[in-house]
Amino acid sequence: MTGRQAERSNVNAPTRFVSANGEKYAYRRFGGGPGLPLLCLQHFTGNLDNWDPAVTDPLAQERELILFESAGVGRSSGKVPHTVAGMASHALAFLDGLRVSTCDVLGFSLGGMVAQQMVQDRPSVFRKLMLVGTAPRGGEDVMHLEKPALRRFLQDPTLKGYEVLVKIFFAPTESSQAAGEAFIARLGLRKDDREPASGPEIAAAQLAAFRDWEQFRGERFAGLKTIRQPTLVVNGVFDVMIPVMNSFWLSQHLPNSVLMTYPDSGHGSLFQFYESFTRQASAFLASDSPLAPY
Amino acid sequence: MTGRQAERSNVNAPTRFVSANGEKYAYRRFGGGPGLPLLCLQHFTGNLDNWDPAVTDPLAQERELILFESAGVGRSSGKVPHTVAGMASHALAFLDGLRVSTCDVLGFSLGGMVAQQMVQDRPSVFRKLMLVGTAPRGGEDVMHLEKPALRRFLQDPTLKGYEVLVKIFFAPTESSQAAGEAFIARLGLRKDDREPASGPEIAAAQLAAFRDWEQFRGERFAGLKTIRQPTLVVNGVFDVMIPVMNSFWLSQHLPNSVLMTYPDSGHGSLFQFYESFTRQASAFLASDSPLAPY
Repeated sequence: MTGRQAERSNVNAPTRFVSANGEKYAYRRFGGGPGLPLLCLQHFTGNLDNWDPAVTDPLAQERELILFESAGVGRSSGKVPHTVAGMASHALAFLDGLRVSTCDVLGFSLGGMVAQQMVQDRPSVFRKLMLVGTAPRGGEDVMHLEKPALRRFLQDPTLKGYEVLVKIFFAPTESSQAAGEAFIARLGLRKDDREPASGPEIAAAQLAAFRDWEQFRGERFAGLKTIRQPTLVVNGVFDVMIPVMNSFWLSQHLPNSVLMTYPDSGHGSLFQFYESFTRQASAFLASDSPLAPY
Repeated sequence: MTGRQAERSNVNAPTRFVSANGEKYAYRRFGGGPGLPLLCLQHFTGNLDNWDPAVTDPLAQERELILFESAGVGRSSGKVPHTVAGMASHALAFLDGLRVSTCDVLGFSLGGMVAQQMVQDRPSVFRKLMLVGTAPRGGEDVMHLEKPALRRFLQDPTLKGYEVLVKIFFAPTESSQAAGEAFIARLGLRKDDREPASGPEIAAAQLAAFRDWEQFRGERFAGLKTIRQPTLVVNGVFDVMIPVMNSFWLSQHLPNSVLMTYPDSGHGSLFQFYESFTRQASAFLASDSPLAPY
């Protein structure tokens, strides 16, 4: 515990491993304080190194953060599931492996879908949810990388490493692009003990999960009504990867949710407005109201 | 000043009058602190007595609040304009009469439309805007009292006095209706120096203004791009008077805005979640960032 609490940054927290469910999951766990642990679930092809220290580190001042690497990603063993439900199973097994019986959860993009699924599969584990840049099951225009607005960047050979994230996570304004450059500079602060980058097989499996997530049976969004936990929904109004309409739907159908949107920003609004986001997230998590408004 | 600062509640702040623009405007001014004065613009047929002390009084701890009674309403002289622009003219003349050269503004419902118009007409006066339960010019389904979901309550003879507000400002859940009952109880706390209730002529003129506000020329919502002030947009997701889609549009087209929505609530979400609303509004107004995120 002492060693873990001494580390409060994703820049230098060591990658750890836990065996559960027949897999070996990579994770990082750092920070501490009065709050419940906060499980952090990552985006499409993202790994532990994609967690912006400007977002994780302020939150780690008041609670432990647990960054999870799902099966088949980074140094976690196993295969990437082709459904969100499969990913939720891995994340629940991981929590069991750590013997974490109750926590809060921050899910970004794909991670927000996994969070919704986990809460529906095992509601007793979760106290509060934060769903950023994500969509409900049955959402629309979820991660269609083939559409021109995204393809033009994803197929641009001049964009190296994280540079493509500046284009696809941020709005095409000078201010948002500058925030994007600062974001990828922060991702580069961690020098050692990094995860291997995700390849095309990981992408293909996760894209299959998005296609499945867009499908729904029966009444659209009805499943959201079963999620009673206080939920904070966040997105940038110019998100081209998972348009903000999906966050509007979350806010209208999650019975105990507050929506906050950010201007001049896209999918990565939490990284652009990290000061505001961490302040709002801290206030939301610190509130002991059973209702989402904080 | 001393007398004014000693009063910090809409329950007992005296109604005052100022002459300007050939009219005599009723208003209340109370509270004090480091913040800029906050001009408060009221809803359809509402008068000074409709400002919930649970909303005004906490905000008055950090700044002066100025509650404005527009022409033809309550004890203000003149005729109710048939356009939002006409109401904005009165409010600007009123500020001139008080010699208030810079302030923040909280506009609720009709008041939010007047606020948008004022900021466009004279941008230099306003530092920050809060737009609650309102719509942009060119919005949709704005105060159609003739639709069955509203008419059933407005024409119900058993709903006396403020009781109709419980039905039309709050969601049809037990929790929201209870919040509505508490709201109208708070409106009754002020015993003396009350304003006369609005009659059908006031309602007719204001409804004409709503019909005009729904019209637009040229590119829809383009006028919002000229509003550069940091803006906080707020609504309940079950607003039947001015549906939340209008707040979504505001957040997508006001270039420097943050949207916050509340669950389980309607048009009067600020009165239902007054603790959260005043906390958020205070944090937003206290931020010295030129950007809306706070």
